[in-house]
Amino acid sequence: MKKAVLAFSGGLDTSFCALYLKEELGYDVITVTVDTGGFTKEELKNIEKRAEDLKVYRHYIIDAKNFVYKNFISYIIKANSMRGGVYPLSVGAERVAQAIEVVKIAKKEKAEALAHGSTGAGNDQVRFDVSFNVLAPELKILTPVRSLGWSRTHEAEWLKSRGIEIDPTVKDYSYNEGLWGTTIGGRQTHNPWDFPPEEVFIKTAFPKNIDRESIEIIIDFENGLPTALNGKTMDGIEIIQNLNELAGKWGIGRGIHIGDTIFGIKGRIIFEAPAPIILITAHKELEKLVLSKQQRFWKDHLGQVYGDMLHEAQYFDPVMRDIEAMIDSSQKYVRGSAKVQFRERSFLVTGVKSPNSMIKTELATYGEVQNLWDWRDAEGFCKVYGIPQRLFNLVNPDFIDKLTEK
Amino acid sequence: MKKAVLAFSGGLDTSFCALYLKEELGYDVITVTVDTGGFTKEELKNIEKRAEDLKVYRHYIIDAKNFVYKNFISYIIKANSMRGGVYPLSVGAERVAQAIEVVKIAKKEKAEALAHGSTGAGNDQVRFDVSFNVLAPELKILTPVRSLGWSRTHEAEWLKSRGIEIDPTVKDYSYNEGLWGTTIGGRQTHNPWDFPPEEVFIKTAFPKNIDRESIEIIIDFENGLPTALNGKTMDGIEIIQNLNELAGKWGIGRGIHIGDTIFGIKGRIIFEAPAPIILITAHKELEKLVLSKQQRFWKDHLGQVYGDMLHEAQYFDPVMRDIEAMIDSSQKYVRGSAKVQFRERSFLVTGVKSPNSMIKTELATYGEVQNLWDWRDAEGFCKVYGIPQRLFNLVNPDFIDKLTEK
Amino acid sequence: MKKAVLAFSGGLDTSFCALYLKEELGYDVITVTVDTGGFTKEELKNIEKRAEDLKVYRHYIIDAKNFVYKNFISYIIKANSMRGGVYPLSVGAERVAQAIEVVKIAKKEKAEALAHGSTGAGNDQVRFDVSFNVLAPELKILTPVRSLGWSRTHEAEWLKSRGIEIDPTVKDYSYNEGLWGTTIGGRQTHNPWDFPPEEVFIKTAFPKNIDRESIEIIIDFENGLPTALNGKTMDGIEIIQNLNELAGKWGIGRGIHIGDTIFGIKGRIIFEAPAPIILITAHKELEKLVLSKQQRFWKDHLGQVYGDMLHEAQYFDPVMRDIEAMIDSSQKYVRGSAKVQFRERSFLVTGVKSPNSMIKTELATYGEVQNLWDWRDAEGFCKVYGIPQRLFNLVNPDFIDKLTEK
Amino acid sequence: MKKAVLAFSGGLDTSFCALYLKEELGYDVITVTVDTGGFTKEELKNIEKRAEDLKVYRHYIIDAKNFVYKNFISYIIKANSMRGGVYPLSVGAERVAQAIEVVKIAKKEKAEALAHGSTGAGNDQVRFDVSFNVLAPELKILTPVRSLGWSRTHEAEWLKSRGIEIDPTVKDYSYNEGLWGTTIGGRQTHNPWDFPPEEVFIKTAFPKNIDRESIEIIIDFENGLPTALNGKTMDGIEIIQNLNELAGKWGIGRGIHIGDTIFGIKGRIIFEAPAPIILITAHKELEKLVLSKQQRFWKDHLGQVYGDMLHEAQYFDPVMRDIEAMIDSSQKYVRGSAKVQFRERSFLVTGVKSPNSMIKTELATYGEVQNLWDWRDAEGFCKVYGIPQRLFNLVNPDFIDKLTEK
Repeated sequence: MKKAVLAFSGGLDTSFCALYLKEELGYDVITVTVDTGGFTKEELKNIEKRAEDLKVYRHYIIDAKNFVYKNFISYIIKANSMRGGVYPLSVGAERVAQAIEVVKIAKKEKAEALAHGSTGAGNDQVRFDVSFNVLAPELKILTPVRSLGWSRTHEAEWLKSRGIEIDPTVKDYSYNEGLWGTTIGGRQTHNPWDFPPEEVFIKTAFPKNIDRESIEIIIDFENGLPTALNGKTMDGIEIIQNLNELAGKWGIGRGIHIGDTIFGIKGRIIFEAPAPIILITAHKELEKLVLSKQQRFWKDHLGQVYGDMLHEAQYFDPVMRDIEAMIDSSQKYVRGSAKVQFRERSFLVTGVKSPNSMIKTELATYGEVQNLWDWRDAEGFCKVYGIPQRLFNLVNPDFIDKLTEK
Repeated sequence: MKKAVLAFSGGLDTSFCALYLKEELGYDVITVTVDTGGFTKEELKNIEKRAEDLKVYRHYIIDAKNFVYKNFISYIIKANSMRGGVYPLSVGAERVAQAIEVVKIAKKEKAEALAHGSTGAGNDQVRFDVSFNVLAPELKILTPVRSLGWSRTHEAEWLKSRGIEIDPTVKDYSYNEGLWGTTIGGRQTHNPWDFPPEEVFIKTAFPKNIDRESIEIIIDFENGLPTALNGKTMDGIEIIQNLNELAGKWGIGRGIHIGDTIFGIKGRIIFEAPAPIILITAHKELEKLVLSKQQRFWKDHLGQVYGDMLHEAQYFDPVMRDIEAMIDSSQKYVRGSAKVQFRERSFLVTGVKSPNSMIKTELATYGEVQNLWDWRDAEGFCKVYGIPQRLFNLVNPDFIDKLTEK
Repeated sequence: MKKAVLAFSGGLDTSFCALYLKEELGYDVITVTVDTGGFTKEELKNIEKRAEDLKVYRHYIIDAKNFVYKNFISYIIKANSMRGGVYPLSVGAERVAQAIEVVKIAKKEKAEALAHGSTGAGNDQVRFDVSFNVLAPELKILTPVRSLGWSRTHEAEWLKSRGIEIDPTVKDYSYNEGLWGTTIGGRQTHNPWDFPPEEVFIKTAFPKNIDRESIEIIIDFENGLPTALNGKTMDGIEIIQNLNELAGKWGIGRGIHIGDTIFGIKGRIIFEAPAPIILITAHKELEKLVLSKQQRFWKDHLGQVYGDMLHEAQYFDPVMRDIEAMIDSSQKYVRGSAKVQFRERSFLVTGVKSPNSMIKTELATYGEVQNLWDWRDAEGFCKVYGIPQRLFNLVNPDFIDKLTEK
Repeated sequence: MKKAVLAFSGGLDTSFCALYLKEELGYDVITVTVDTGGFTKEELKNIEKRAEDLKVYRHYIIDAKNFVYKNFISYIIKANSMRGGVYPLSVGAERVAQAIEVVKIAKKEKAEALAHGSTGAGNDQVRFDVSFNVLAPELKILTPVRSLGWSRTHEAEWLKSRGIEIDPTVKDYSYNEGLWGTTIGGRQTHNPWDFPPEEVFIKTAFPKNIDRESIEIIIDFENGLPTALNGKTMDGIEIIQNLNELAGKWGIGRGIHIGDTIFGIKGRIIFEAPAPIILITAHKELEKLVLSKQQRFWKDHLGQVYGDMLHEAQYFDPVMRDIEAMIDSSQKYVRGSAKVQFRERSFLVTGVKSPNSMIKTELATYGEVQNLWDWRDAEGFCKVYGIPQRLFNLVNPDFIDKLTEK
C-alpha cells in the first residue's frame, strides 16, 4: 500500500490527519514526532501511545535538538536575529527542521506523500509546504485539516465515531514549547491592547517579596557561540537549558511581538525566551568589542534579512548560505566573555572582555589622552571630514538657512 | 576689538578658554551657554557668575530645549534610532544644537572667531568643528584646550595666577545631563569588564524591599510623536521630563554602550535614559500595528543610518533631510496609544491600539479562521511562494543534500 | 443587468473575454482601453470598432499618458530605477495605471465585476489582480482566459461560432509598446542563448554604411525631471517621444534582461527603450555633480527597491510613498544640463553642468592644489581615517599575515 | 645607515623623493616599482636606469599582476563592482597592492621608513598612508612631495642642481595605465561640461568608414571568473589583455565618472577599460540565469559597498573579508558561458547559458503555459500576495483616494 509520512504532535489536528489519511485516503500512515526541545520524556511516550491507538504503520521519534542548534539557533545567535527587534524566532526554525526530518523518513520509507496538520491561517503551513516542495517535489502534499476546514468539534466527533476520544475544547492558551523559547497564544493575545494575567506565564514566573539583590553570571564565547557558563564548559544546548532555568526564575525573558505573517496579516504573540534574549544580547555586546563598525552595521542588517527569511519559510534560498558565509567569516574574532547581571525581571550585560578586544587603553582611551594621533591630526581630520557637508551648503546656502531657522 | 564666541559650560576647560582667548589671543570673548535640558536655574546662575568673573564681553544663555526636541529628539523617536541597539543618542544631538546657537550669536555679534573647549580625544570636537565649518566657513576656529594640550592642573594654575580659582580635580565620574538622557564616564567605564557601583546612578536609583507590584501608564501618539501621558495632553518635552521622573523611580532606563567613535577607537559609556528608551520602544510597538512590513524594514534601516550620522557629526549632509522626508511620510499613520507596564527595573509595552490598526479581527485573526482567503488560495500561495527555492534546488541537487546532511 | 468592466486591448484574448463575460456569465460588458503611449490613432479606432462588433455595453478610451508620466515614469527617472541594471521597467507601470483607470470607470458605472485577459503564466495577472483587490475589494474579479485555460485556437473558434473572426495565429514576435519603451517576446527570447535577427527591432534600426560621425544633444533638468531638449522647452512626454525618435535612429537603446518574475521563475525579454536609457543615464550623471555621496548611495539603493516593488505589483504599499518622499527631497537640487553624444549604437554623457555644481575649481580640483586643506590636515586625516583598520589588525596580526601572503 | 623604501614610478615626483630622502633626510633609499600591468618591458628598464642615476641603495621590480588579479580584480568581477555604476575601480586596487609590496620589502630590508610621492590633493595619499599604517605602524611615513608642496618646476630645478634632468612640463593629459584600465586626467576633465578630443583616447580608438558589421565572442566562467575566451582556455590576466585589445579596436569601453573623493570633494576622470566593462557585464548577465533574486539583490548591494570601500582605502577593514566570503559562497553556481556581440562602439551580451540555468523550459516559460502551478494556484497567490496592500488601504481609505486622483 502507498505510504504517507505525517508530521505528528499527537494533538487533535494531527491525530485526525493520521486516521483520515488512513481511512479516507487509503494510506499506510507513518507518524514522525520531531523533538526540538519542547517535549518531556513522558509527553513523547504519550504521543507514541496515541500513534499506536491510531494504528499507524510506523511511528518515529527524532531527536532534532542538535540539528536545530547547529543549523538554526547557532546562526540566530551569530546574526543577533530578533524579529521586530524583540522576538528570537523561536518557532520558525523548528518547523523547517521538522519538515526536513519528515522528508528524510519519507525517502527512507519510499513514501508517496507527505502530510501536515496545519490550518490555512498561519505561517506553519507555508513552512511545511515550501520545505516539502523544495526537498521532495515528487511527493504529494496532503493537508486534510486545511482543505476540509472542519471545526475542532467536528474532527473530534469524527475521531470518536472511530473509537478515538480526544477533547476538542480549545484551551484558553496554547503553548508552543521548544529549546529556543515558548510562545503563547490565546484570549488576550488576539487583541493588541490586552495582556494575559501573570499566571499564564510558565517559564518566567517571579515570586513577590523575594529577598535578593542580584546575581552575576559569565558566559564564554568562541567563534560567536557560547561555550561555557560560569566557567563550566557546556555545549550550546546545555547552556540554553541552564540559562532558561536560571534567568526564568528572575522573571527575565518575557516579550510581546506584533509581526507581519507570511500571508500579510498582522499577528501577535506573547513569548517567554530567557536564554535566547540573554545570549543574543551578550553576544552582541561582545561583538561591539571585537568587530569593526562596518562589520557590525552590515552583519546586523544582513542578520535582519536572514532572520526574516528564516521566519518566512525561505530557508532554502541560496542567499541564506551566502549570508551564513558572511556571518561565519565575522565570527572568527568573536571570542571572550560576557558578564550578565540578573535582577528582578531585568538583566544587564555589565561587562565584556576578549583577547581580541579593540579597546587598547595603552593606545587610546575615549575622551582622554591618546597616542594614536596628536591635536594637529585631530584638527586636520575634522577639517577634511566636514568637507562634503561644507561644499553642499556652500552651493546651496538656503539649505542651511532653513535648517537653523526652524 | 575682534570678537570670539565660545561655547561655554562654566567648567575648568571652557573657563580657561575664555580667559586664554582674551589674554593671549586678544579677543573680546562672548560666552554662550546653551541649555539643552541639563541645567537647573541655579546652575545657570553660577555659570553666569563665572562668566562675569572671567570678564567676558557678553554672556548669553540660550534655551534650546524646544529646538533640540523639534529638530533632533523628534526624529530620533520617529526613526527609533538607538545606537548599537541600546543608546538613544543622548549627547550627539545636543552638541550640534549648541554649535548652531553659537554660530547664530557669532553672526549677530559680527564675530571673527568661534571657539570650543573640547579636547582632541573625543567626538565633541568633531561635532563643533564640522558644524562651525559648515555654518560659518569664513570664521576662524579656536580650540586652546585641544591645541595646547595642557593638563587640568596646568590650566587651573594658569587661571589661578590670573585670579580665578577652579578646582582641577577630576571627579571619579563625570555626568553629561540633558533632556534626552544622562551619560556617565569615569573609572569603571574605561574597562569594558567593569561596572560602576549602584550609588553612581542618579536618575534610576531603585530602593530595595519596596512593596509594589506594577503600574501601567498610557502614552498617546500623533504623527509618530507623543502627545499625552495618562490621558493628559502635554508637549513632548513635558512628557519626557515626566517619564524620566516616573520611570527612573522604578529603576528603568539604565544602559551601557560600547561604540565606535568618529576617530575610530572604541568608547564605552554608561547612561541613564528612562524616557528615551520607553518612548522609542512604545513608538516602535505602535508602528508594528499600523505600518507595512516594508515600511518598518526600510525605515528601521535608514533610521539606523540617520542615528549614526547624527551621532557622527554629519547632521548637515543633505541625505539627512531626505531621510527625514521619508520618515515623516511614514509617520502620518502612526497615531494611537501604547500601554506600558512598569515593574522593578523593567518595563513592557503590554498593549497598543490605533484607529489605523491593521489588526482587523473581523477579517483575519492570526492562526485562526479568516475571510481574506480560503484553503485553496492558501495552497496555491504556498506552491508559488516556494518556486524560486524549488527551482534553485532542482538545478543544484547537491545544495540540498549538503544542507540536510549536516 | 449587472456590469463588468474589462481592460481591453482589442486582441484575441480580451475580445474573447468580452464576449464570454456577456454570453456565458451574463454581464453587460464595459471595455476600457487605456492609452499609455503605445497606440496610434488608427489602432485606437480599430479597437473601438472591435468593441462595437463585440456588442459591448460601452467602450471607453482613456488617455493615461500624463498619469503614467506623472506617477510612474517621473519616479523611475528620479530614482534611476533600472531593473537588473538595464531594464527601465517599461511595462509594469503601465499595467498598474491601466488597472487604476479600469477601477475608476467601474466605480462610475457602478459595476459589480472587474475583468482582465491575462493568462496564469506571467506578471500582468498579478498587477491586475492586486490593483483590483486593493482599489475595489468589494468587486469580483473575472479572468476567463486564466481560469478556462483554452488554447488561442479554441478561443478563436468559440468567437467565430458567434460571428467574430480573429486570427489565432501567434506571431513570431509580440510587441508591447508604450511611451516608456517597447518589449519584444517570442522565438529566440525564450532561450537565453539565442538572440533575434536585426529585422525584429523596430525602434532602434541602424542603417549600414551611413556617413556620420556623431551629434550632441543637450537635456535640461529641473527638480530631477527633463524640461528641455536642445534648449527647447518641452514637457516630459514630448522629450521622451523626441528622444525615442532621435536616438532610435542611431541604433541606441536596445537591451536584454533576464529577470525574476513575481511567480519566481526566470523570464527574459528583449527591449528597445532609447529615451528611458538616455534620460536615466543623463540624470544619474547630473546627480553626481550635485548630490552628496550619501544621498546617491541611499537613493540608488532605495530606488532599486522602489523599481522592484513597482515591477512586482506592490505599488500600493505605503513604503512606496515614503520612498517617493525621500526621492523628492533629494531632487530639489537636481537641476542643470547634460550633454549627450550620440554615435553609432552608443551614447556617452560627455558633460554636465549645474548652478548647484559641487565642483568648485576655485576651492579644490581633484588631484591638484586646493584651498580647503593643507598638507598637514591631509596627513592628520589619513592617520585618523586608518585607525579602525589599524586597531583591528593590531589585535589580530594573523589577519594581515594571511592577507599579504596570498 | 637607516633605510627608506619608496614606491617608485620613475617620474618627476618619485625621482625627487628618492634624492630628497637621501640627501636631505639621510636615508639609504630603496626604490620599488610595482608592475600592475601598466608598464612595457622598456618602460621598466628606463625606470631601473633612472633609479641608478639617482644612486639608490637598491631597486626592486615586482610583478604584481597575479596578486592584483587574485586579490582585487577577481572580487571586482565577482561583485560586479562599478563605482557610480560605470567605473570599474581601475586605480584604487593597484595602489593598495603597491603599498603591500613596498611594505614587504621594507620588512625584508629592515627599513625604518616608508615613502610615497603622492601630493596632498588626491586619493592615492590615503591609500598609501592607510596601508602603511595598517601593515607597518612601527615605520615612519615620509612624503616630501606632500609636505614640501613645491611646484614641479621647483622640484625639477632642485634635481637639476644635483645633476638629474627631468622635464617638469605637465603634459596636457596624464595617463594611469594598468591591467584593469587606463584613466586619463587633464585639461577638459577638470570641467564637468567639457570632453577631450578623440585623439586623447589611446585604447579605444575607432577608425571611421570601416566596413564591418559585428563579431561575436564567447567568454566561459567558472566560480564567477573567466576561464576561456572563444573556447580557448586562458588565465584571467590573459583574458583581460586579449579583451582589452579586441574590444578596444571596436571603440568599446570608454567612460566618464564624476565621483566623491575620500577627502569629500568631487573628482572627474575619463577612462578606457574595455575588458573590465565587458567582463562585469557578461558576468552579471550570467548571474541572472543562475542566482536567486535575493542573491543578486544583496550581492549587488554589498558589492557596491565592497567596491566603494576598496576605492576609499578601506581594504583592510575586516568587513571586506566577510563580504568576500559572502561573494565566494554565491559564485559556486556561477559557471557557464556568455556570448558578447561587438559592434561599432557598443557591445551587447546576446546570450548566456549554464549547466545551472534556472530557465527550465520543460517546467515553465515566462508568459506561456507552465507546469509548476495551475490557474487556481495563480489566483490564490495573487489574492494572498496583495493582502498587505489591501489591509493598509482598507484602514486608510484616503491613501488610495489621493493616489488615484493625482
